[in-house]
Amino acid sequence: MKVLSVLKNVPEDLQQWLDEKYPSLEFRYCHGMKEGEPFLEEADILVTYGEDLDKEKIEKAVNLKWIMVMSAGMDRMPFEAIRERGVLVTNVRGIHAQPMAEYAIGMFLQNAKRMKELHLQEKESRWNRRLEFQEMNGHTMTLLGTGAIASETARLAKCFNMKTVGVSRSGEAKKHFDEVFRIDQLTEALETGDYVTAVLPSTEETRGLLRKEHFEAMPAHAVFLNMGRGELVSTDVLLEAVQEGLISHAILDVMEEEPLPAEHALWREENITVTPHISGITSRYLPRGFEIFDRNIKAYIENETMENVIDLERGY
Amino acid sequence: MKVLSVLKNVPEDLQQWLDEKYPSLEFRYCHGMKEGEPFLEEADILVTYGEDLDKEKIEKAVNLKWIMVMSAGMDRMPFEAIRERGVLVTNVRGIHAQPMAEYAIGMFLQNAKRMKELHLQEKESRWNRRLEFQEMNGHTMTLLGTGAIASETARLAKCFNMKTVGVSRSGEAKKHFDEVFRIDQLTEALETGDYVTAVLPSTEETRGLLRKEHFEAMPAHAVFLNMGRGELVSTDVLLEAVQEGLISHAILDVMEEEPLPAEHALWREENITVTPHISGITSRYLPRGFEIFDRNIKAYIENETMENVIDLERGY
Repeated sequence: MKVLSVLKNVPEDLQQWLDEKYPSLEFRYCHGMKEGEPFLEEADILVTYGEDLDKEKIEKAVNLKWIMVMSAGMDRMPFEAIRERGVLVTNVRGIHAQPMAEYAIGMFLQNAKRMKELHLQEKESRWNRRLEFQEMNGHTMTLLGTGAIASETARLAKCFNMKTVGVSRSGEAKKHFDEVFRIDQLTEALETGDYVTAVLPSTEETRGLLRKEHFEAMPAHAVFLNMGRGELVSTDVLLEAVQEGLISHAILDVMEEEPLPAEHALWREENITVTPHISGITSRYLPRGFEIFDRNIKAYIENETMENVIDLERGY
Repeated sequence: MKVLSVLKNVPEDLQQWLDEKYPSLEFRYCHGMKEGEPFLEEADILVTYGEDLDKEKIEKAVNLKWIMVMSAGMDRMPFEAIRERGVLVTNVRGIHAQPMAEYAIGMFLQNAKRMKELHLQEKESRWNRRLEFQEMNGHTMTLLGTGAIASETARLAKCFNMKTVGVSRSGEAKKHFDEVFRIDQLTEALETGDYVTAVLPSTEETRGLLRKEHFEAMPAHAVFLNMGRGELVSTDVLLEAVQEGLISHAILDVMEEEPLPAEHALWREENITVTPHISGITSRYLPRGFEIFDRNIKAYIENETMENVIDLERGY
C-alpha cells in the first residue's frame, strides 16, 4: 500500500518512525503538492494539509482510499468530488486542544498572580509585595463551547479544583463540565463565571453573540478570555465592558481585526491583554499530528474504528 | 469548652460560621495577645499565629489542652513548656501548597508561552507571532523536595501530562511522583529536568546545596524555579548558570538577599525572572486555615485523628 505525503518539511525522525513501524507500507514524502502530483495516481493514502486539493487531483488519484488531513480546518477541501469517489477523510481535529488549554490556564494565572505588574516592577528593580494575588482554586470557569479545546481547558480547570460550567447548543452533559447550559441560557451561565473562556467557532449563530448585556451579567471581578473567533464580540462592546468595570479584565487572542493595527485602542487599555492569535501555535504540531496518523494507520490496517473521520455531507 | 483566638482581624463571617457550627463551644475573638491575655486562664483551646507565646503564658493557661497555630512556621513556639504541660499542638502545614503550586505552574507557563515577550510587544502595540512557544505537556518536571508544596505542584504537573521526578532525603516513592531520587543522586535527577522546581526548606543540608556542577547537569533548555529558600543556591552561581547558558531561564521568588536591593544584578538579567517572595501570598489564607481548624475541632470533639499534629520533641 502506497502512502504519499505532500507536507513540506516533515522531520526525518517522523518519517523514519513510521517507515520502521509499518514496513508493509511504502511511504513517499514530497515537498509540497507540485512535487507530489506525479505520484497521486498510485497513492492509496494521501497526507496533506488539505489546502492543495481540487476536483482534478481527486480524479487523478484513482487508487486513493483515504485522505489524512493534517489540519483542523477543512474549508478548502473539494468534498463533493471526494464524496463521489467515496474516499475516506480524517483530520487532526483537537490538535490545538493542548496548547490552547495551556494558553488559557497560563493567561488566567498571569492575571491571578499579577504577573504583568510583577514584570513591570522587575523592570524597575522594585521589590513590592503589596499586590492582590488571587487563586484559581475554588473559583468557577465558565466556557462558551464544549468541544475538544473547551473540554481540555475544563479538564485542567478541574485539576485546579475549579467548578466548570459549559455552554453548548444542546446543553448536553459532558465530561469535565460540572454543569452545561444551553445557548439560550447564556446569561444565566455567564453569571456563574469568575473566569470566562470563549472557544466558539465563527458561525452565523456566534457572530456578535456576546453583547453588552452579557458582560453586565458577569461578576464585576470576572476575567474574560477569547481564544475562539474575534467575531464573537465587537471591539466596542469589549472596550465598554472593561472601561465601565462590568468585568475586571479581558484577555484577547482573537479580535475583529487581525493583525490588530498599531493605533487600535485595545492595545492601550490597561485591563485588556492582547496576544497576537498565538494560543494554538506549538512546536509539537507535526509530531502530534503524526501520532494521530499513526493510530489511524493501525486502525485502518486492522479494520478498526478510526479517529476524526469526517462526515463528507457535513464537511466536518 | 472555651476557645480563645488571639488572631487579629478575623473576618466576621468566619467567626459566625464556627459559632453556628459548634454551639457547644464558647468562642472569644481577641485582637491580639495583649487583648486576649486575661482570658488565657479559662481557655481550653487557643488559636494563635504562634509568635506571641512564651513559657509564662503557657503556665498561665492552666486549662489549655490544644493550641491551634495558624501558621506553618513554628520557630517561636515555646515547645519545652508546652511539652511539660502535655498540650496538643496542631498547625496549618500545607496551607501554602495551593497558591505556591499555582505560582509555579503559572510562572513556567509564563516562560513556555513567552508572556513577558508578549507583554513587551503589547506595550509597543506590536503584532508579532514569531516567538518560540513551548508546551508543558510531555516534558519532565524535577522537584527538589517532596513535601506538601512539592506534591501539590507535582500533582498539577501530572495534570499537564508531565513526567514528575522528585528528590528527597529518603528517595521513597510518593504519590504524584513518577520517580523519586535520593538527595545523593541529585545530579542524576537534575539531568531529567526540563522544568526544575526547588521547594526545599533552609537547613544545614540544603544551604548552598546547588552548585555550578548541578546547573551543568541540567539540560541547556531547562527552566529553574526556586520558591523554597534563597540559601539553596548562591546568587553568583545563578548568574553564571544563566549567563553561560547552562540553563535557559531562572525564576526566583526567593534569593540570598531579601528584599533584593535595587542595584542587584539579578534584576537586570534578561533570562532571570525575579518575584518578591510572593508565591505563598493568598487572600484565602485565613479561610483555608479555618477550614483546617474546623476539621480539627470536629475530630477533637469526636476523639478522632486530627490533622497536622506537631511532634513536640521534634518541633514539626
